[in-house]
Amino acid sequence: MSQIKKTPRSRVKRKPYRGDYDFDTVAAVLDAGFICHVGYNIDGKPYVTPTSYWREGDQVYWHGSSASRMLKAQEQGIDVCFTVTHVDGLVMARSAFNHSINYRSVMLFGAAQKVEDEDYKLKVLETFTEKLFPGRWAELRPVTRRELKATTVLHMPIEEGSAKIRNGDPGDDEADYAWPVWAGVVPLAEQAGQPRPCPRLIEGTKLPKYLKPLWRLK
Amino acid sequence: MSQIKKTPRSRVKRKPYRGDYDFDTVAAVLDAGFICHVGYNIDGKPYVTPTSYWREGDQVYWHGSSASRMLKAQEQGIDVCFTVTHVDGLVMARSAFNHSINYRSVMLFGAAQKVEDEDYKLKVLETFTEKLFPGRWAELRPVTRRELKATTVLHMPIEEGSAKIRNGDPGDDEADYAWPVWAGVVPLAEQAGQPRPCPRLIEGTKLPKYLKPLWRLK
Repeated sequence: MSQIKKTPRSRVKRKPYRGDYDFDTVAAVLDAGFICHVGYNIDGKPYVTPTSYWREGDQVYWHGSSASRMLKAQEQGIDVCFTVTHVDGLVMARSAFNHSINYRSVMLFGAAQKVEDEDYKLKVLETFTEKLFPGRWAELRPVTRRELKATTVLHMPIEEGSAKIRNGDPGDDEADYAWPVWAGVVPLAEQAGQPRPCPRLIEGTKLPKYLKPLWRLK
Repeated sequence: MSQIKKTPRSRVKRKPYRGDYDFDTVAAVLDAGFICHVGYNIDGKPYVTPTSYWREGDQVYWHGSSASRMLKAQEQGIDVCFTVTHVDGLVMARSAFNHSINYRSVMLFGAAQKVEDEDYKLKVLETFTEKLFPGRWAELRPVTRRELKATTVLHMPIEEGSAKIRNGDPGDDEADYAWPVWAGVVPLAEQAGQPRPCPRLIEGTKLPKYLKPLWRLK
């Protein structure tokens, strides 16, 4: 199994047994979501912007308006920290101190690069749409040249970083297991609800099949 | 209604109509969650760390181990960006370009301060527990002096920042409403599942009443 770079920056210091540098583990955490938080500096001050992303191979991608201040800063190749977090449960222990959260997270470090080639940009945007909604790209009104120009796509290699994962039951102090309070895990997961059609939807338009698996979204 | 500071940093530039500087709006977005992403620099490089938080009055609080590299850096009063994001839906338009996400987010800027007074620290930790599980604090094995020392609590005023919110239906180009593809919103929400008791739970321990409202968690 290939490993990603463990560096002074990416090494998990607190509770190092929760750290994981295996590429496949990192990729699995990334593939379970589509919202990341990207950290970067403008004039030496930190910003954290939530945005959508996708992974393909050893790259993560994110995109937005070419007018975006965030993307304009990042496309210069400045340092970024790319973080993805899934909250899986509230871990309720017998003491406040041992309460915790079950989660899967990934932190990646590096510098983003802009996708310059317009054909390649179109291809990776198709990949993003198809990852969320397989089959939808061909059904959509095609992308125009103007729209493509108005969209910036950045990517960054999955090279330096780590996954950090906590799962399982509360870990209480040995003496506390006799304390008479409920303890356990409340699982949490992102769930999709019943799709709400656009009020201007053409009458008789069927709900696409690719929305069905979203009900199993985790 | 009180407003928070609109500055060159906190003003929402892209789609400014999505920006909101009203304190109550910001507070409502903060109160709907308990996981934030805090951005900060160490040696000039950006880091984004997910952590739990709570709000009380005009302050946000977060905490962790006193040994945490993140908290040790932040308690020096360095600049931080505190971001909270709730993903409310996938917005499916007739063109790829007009696809979007419904969300509520808050970005706050400032410098964190450490809660130094031990009694006050204990009080704010109680507030956090009670916000998530009203009534649990009194049931738990009491916090020890050693645990309190091992915990760092930081806080930051809600002073400079903004909320950014998108909701509602897809916004398509006028001509595209005639395009024959399904369009609408797939709602997304964080849901709690059936609590899973700790395998070492004392037999007969009842599920606390304060877990019931979690089934309505949004």
